Amino acid sequence: MSDTAPAPPATPPLRIALAGLGTVGVGVLRLIETNRAIVEARAGRPIEVVAVSAREAGRQRGIDLAASDFVSDLTALARRGDVDVVIEAVGGAEGAALALAEAALGAGKGLITANKAMIAHHGLRLAQLAEAHGAPLAFEAAVAGGIPVVKGLREGAAANAIERITGILNGTSNYILSTMEATGADFAEVLAEAQAKGYAEADPSFDIDGIDAAHKLAILAAIGFGARIDFAAVSTSGIREVRAADIAQARVLGFVIRLVGVADCREGKLLQRVRPCLVPTSHPLAHVTGATNAVVAEGNFSGRLLFQGAGAGAGPTASAIVADLIDIARGTAGAPFSLPAGALAPMARADPGHRVGRDYIRFTVADRTGVLAEITAAMRDAGVSIESLIQHGRASEDGGEVLVAMVTHEGPERCVTRALELLEGSASLTAAPLVLPILRD
Amino acid sequence: MSDTAPAPPATPPLRIALAGLGTVGVGVLRLIETNRAIVEARAGRPIEVVAVSAREAGRQRGIDLAASDFVSDLTALARRGDVDVVIEAVGGAEGAALALAEAALGAGKGLITANKAMIAHHGLRLAQLAEAHGAPLAFEAAVAGGIPVVKGLREGAAANAIERITGILNGTSNYILSTMEATGADFAEVLAEAQAKGYAEADPSFDIDGIDAAHKLAILAAIGFGARIDFAAVSTSGIREVRAADIAQARVLGFVIRLVGVADCREGKLLQRVRPCLVPTSHPLAHVTGATNAVVAEGNFSGRLLFQGAGAGAGPTASAIVADLIDIARGTAGAPFSLPAGALAPMARADPGHRVGRDYIRFTVADRTGVLAEITAAMRDAGVSIESLIQHGRASEDGGEVLVAMVTHEGPERCVTRALELLEGSASLTAAPLVLPILRD
Repeated sequence: MSDTAPAPPATPPLRIALAGLGTVGVGVLRLIETNRAIVEARAGRPIEVVAVSAREAGRQRGIDLAASDFVSDLTALARRGDVDVVIEAVGGAEGAALALAEAALGAGKGLITANKAMIAHHGLRLAQLAEAHGAPLAFEAAVAGGIPVVKGLREGAAANAIERITGILNGTSNYILSTMEATGADFAEVLAEAQAKGYAEADPSFDIDGIDAAHKLAILAAIGFGARIDFAAVSTSGIREVRAADIAQARVLGFVIRLVGVADCREGKLLQRVRPCLVPTSHPLAHVTGATNAVVAEGNFSGRLLFQGAGAGAGPTASAIVADLIDIARGTAGAPFSLPAGALAPMARADPGHRVGRDYIRFTVADRTGVLAEITAAMRDAGVSIESLIQHGRASEDGGEVLVAMVTHEGPERCVTRALELLEGSASLTAAPLVLPILRD
Repeated sequence: MSDTAPAPPATPPLRIALAGLGTVGVGVLRLIETNRAIVEARAGRPIEVVAVSAREAGRQRGIDLAASDFVSDLTALARRGDVDVVIEAVGGAEGAALALAEAALGAGKGLITANKAMIAHHGLRLAQLAEAHGAPLAFEAAVAGGIPVVKGLREGAAANAIERITGILNGTSNYILSTMEATGADFAEVLAEAQAKGYAEADPSFDIDGIDAAHKLAILAAIGFGARIDFAAVSTSGIREVRAADIAQARVLGFVIRLVGVADCREGKLLQRVRPCLVPTSHPLAHVTGATNAVVAEGNFSGRLLFQGAGAGAGPTASAIVADLIDIARGTAGAPFSLPAGALAPMARADPGHRVGRDYIRFTVADRTGVLAEITAAMRDAGVSIESLIQHGRASEDGGEVLVAMVTHEGPERCVTRALELLEGSASLTAAPLVLPILRD
């Protein structure tokens, strides 16, 4: 018998495989290196990156990978016996990322991902797979970068019936709209400048057409309403049609224009939409400028909760991924969509035509007599009540094009749709009208 | 042998005792009643309120208490064999609330509280007691009402070294300051109106002198920095001295005035202060009006995270308490201050004199020759560099009192302190100068 007390059993490390060494993957490694003491103290155990994978093995990335095996086969990486958790930083809704996720969860390993497209399209199936194999699945980084809004909704607001989720979910679009607002420049000019600076992609459609925001909105809606994720139900329109003149006009009326995702659930019917909206300057989302993201969740007891921060970037994304890692290390990661997969409700889709609200409608019209009479007659015939109408004057120096903007009184959305149908094909309109809903204060 | 499969074992309910049936206690019961299906689905088990306690047993509260025993002895309530978790809604830093908390944790039961004063003063000891008895301790509702900022800091931002926490933590003070801003009215007038409306207490000192905000700041600092809570180290000054003229002057300079709690940690030294500050209009806290609370946490990877919402009220407080309840029901409640009590660092207190920043300084002076020369000489002699200086004109119609406001260049705080020491006792000053730090953008 020894006369010294036996050493306490060492806490086993959490062993990680990291797939993908792009911006996100390298950010995760850098965070673990920089904040190791904090992360391990909060995780309650050591963190070991046992294996990594990337397309180019030898590339210089400014990080020390000596302690990790380099594995080129992603499926082999996911199934290694010495791995507890796989971090997927490969990207893409399907293909290698999805195969990796399925292999990892199927082998009972935890999966952490920032891949909003994959979760938006395959989240329910992955949650079922995770549950079947007793494996945690976590994707805080998939929504709004470093902002802990998945946790905030799923756990922080867990006691509430969520009535509505409203968010600025795409940094590129918000950068473009708030820059247009600050400089008075038009969309194409600001987009080109953003592309030159690297704030927007060469092909920017994912961001500016609202698809990226729609991915995130579908994830938040599933969590907030305890619903089966239904990305196909998100109606999406982007910011290409927003002109400097619209922003100027909105400002005069006391609004800013933002690309906003709104999900609300009434009588068991879910409406999910991403659209440019007029936001009253008294609304918290009106003050969100630049590439920042923000989400407002309205709970029946909490009231309005606002979560705001950097929506992208290596640091914020790594912060969210490692927060998930700490939850998994502590054994406290819950159901990914807030309820067991079997309890997630298949939500009916709401008919947007029944929704009641105010709209900003901008017409591009030929500069000739009788145009206003034609438009206002169509509004009257469709039952749309006009609160204010402003004729902008010529849109361009040389053309005969004039902008006419109006704000409607509160009314059913189908009346506005009907009015635009009545005007369809009219020779007075030189382009399709732009309808921007007005967010409630 | 039966040919039907045996029923799965029923999940045991979480059995609750609720002490205190004031606004908070009744709010909790109302939430559980209204949202029972949601709460039990997320908790993964039934919730039973087995016992309640209040000073007056028979009082009509508009809620059905038939299913709960009424227990008058709080200690007996805390020790009941059929109780898993005690919710403390009694209030007060010591006395009955503390005795109840100690009895509950000592008996190995979970404790949930909204009591910021008790946690600020006794949080470390209660965390040690909880740990010793394997009992969860949770106090989301103690900071910023319904905003899940305790969880946001402790878990959402867990991967970060937190550099600074900045918050609007007292709704009453923020209501008064933002109403002064909107109406131009002076402090006393707005306070009286707030008292008449029930937004401020008859004795408002807890709120307007910054003590309530200091309680919350100390809790956030302990969590964010993994430190032993040190409420005594919070330096606190309130909003009584802020005049309408200061708010008007700040506005001209591009700032609003808010009561702000700031905790920062550099080289292992912690500085915690609650003071009225000049907030640049570009800072997220500048847009927080009315009784709203907001917290900005700056992590070394996440960047600035903003959490905002209702800071008080029955609904938001109940939302936070029941979120804690769901965590406890799921067995996922972590260390209350983010680390085991033994790992919380005893932080040294920073010397505020070494801090570098800009200040707004307002003097109330006699209207006579040479006053400006005297003030500016003192500034020069103390090494304070003046960025701008504005003489306001007479403060009142009848008196000879004049306001002089200045903004300093960035410099060490001790220089400003030294300048004011040089001016102490000067016959030119008709009141003590007011120094408001300028928050960094």
